[in-house]
Amino acid sequence: MLKVINFQSSAREELVNLKDEIEAFVGDSKIDAGLCFVYCPHTTGGLVVNSYLDPNTPKDILHEIDRLIPTRLDFFHTFDTPSDAAGHVKSSLVGVSAVFVIDDGKLMLGHSQGILFAEFDGPRDRMIFAKIIPG
Amino acid sequence: MLKVINFQSSAREELVNLKDEIEAFVGDSKIDAGLCFVYCPHTTGGLVVNSYLDPNTPKDILHEIDRLIPTRLDFFHTFDTPSDAAGHVKSSLVGVSAVFVIDDGKLMLGHSQGILFAEFDGPRDRMIFAKIIPG
Amino acid sequence: MLKVINFQSSAREELVNLKDEIEAFVGDSKIDAGLCFVYCPHTTGGLVVNSYLDPNTPKDILHEIDRLIPTRLDFFHTFDTPSDAAGHVKSSLVGVSAVFVIDDGKLMLGHSQGILFAEFDGPRDRMIFAKIIPG
Repeated sequence: MLKVINFQSSAREELVNLKDEIEAFVGDSKIDAGLCFVYCPHTTGGLVVNSYLDPNTPKDILHEIDRLIPTRLDFFHTFDTPSDAAGHVKSSLVGVSAVFVIDDGKLMLGHSQGILFAEFDGPRDRMIFAKIIPG
Repeated sequence: MLKVINFQSSAREELVNLKDEIEAFVGDSKIDAGLCFVYCPHTTGGLVVNSYLDPNTPKDILHEIDRLIPTRLDFFHTFDTPSDAAGHVKSSLVGVSAVFVIDDGKLMLGHSQGILFAEFDGPRDRMIFAKIIPG
Repeated sequence: MLKVINFQSSAREELVNLKDEIEAFVGDSKIDAGLCFVYCPHTTGGLVVNSYLDPNTPKDILHEIDRLIPTRLDFFHTFDTPSDAAGHVKSSLVGVSAVFVIDDGKLMLGHSQGILFAEFDGPRDRMIFAKIIPG
């Protein structure tokens, strides 16, 4: 079972929580036990699994990653904008694939874990793939 | 097959090697070929797969991540402690899910690879999930 | 289905694109839908999924990671070279496992995504494992 989730990011940098969409997909699948894979096909975005309960946590995550890889003019890749060049590096650090366990028909997430698409060069039309296998 | 491994971290920052527990789970499963998925449900901890043979390597890994994301007072998230706020960012960088190949009844790890839970805000009671599927 | 891909890196730091080898493995498998797992058994190398169309993007990625974790003399791990010690940290940040979706007989990669082995302490003989499961 494969689902493509389309959405739009609304800022240059943003963590978009896709937990509800992915949990709905798991619920619809009627699978009791298995795995759910999430994949980001973008190179200036990535996947972060972290807390979203306090909106300041996503803000810290984005702010710190931006502090580590500042958007600036001295990147080698100058075909696109400086935030695009920085975004490729940020995406490489957070990664683009994640795996989740399904048990008793539900995603086994920690209680404050969201499944966050990390936008590093928005706003843009984005998509992620979610795939479920029983097992 | 799903196993929840409970353990306690013993320091604010620590890499806890869970390789033996996960290898034992793979052995008990009697599965000859397949995949083993490891998942960390915490948001101030993560998973690192790296060398543990020289204890100075885990020390370097923790020290460098702490240098990149110093525990300090200017995080936006101030509901918990500064090390909690820093831990969310560190967890986002190392990630919380990992996949391993099982072949000939064994995990195909590199000879010095450990499966390390990265504690960024301990000491605490922690757990990870390990799941095996044949294939 | 498991494939071990052997190759040699040619520089101290390099992103080696293994997309063609992995796509060929997926094609040979004749599997229409499923998942492809890629695993790096090394502790001074890792996996990065990012753009390779402009060679300056891999250059930026390596350069920025090297800026974050400079090769220098003050690592705790001094059994090997300073670039080995730095490589362990870099590998921990980018990670060693990745998952890809197979649909309609093909890897669902973004149009500019490569599957890049990140060499952080080369040149060396290296290998990665690719495993496919239907589903």
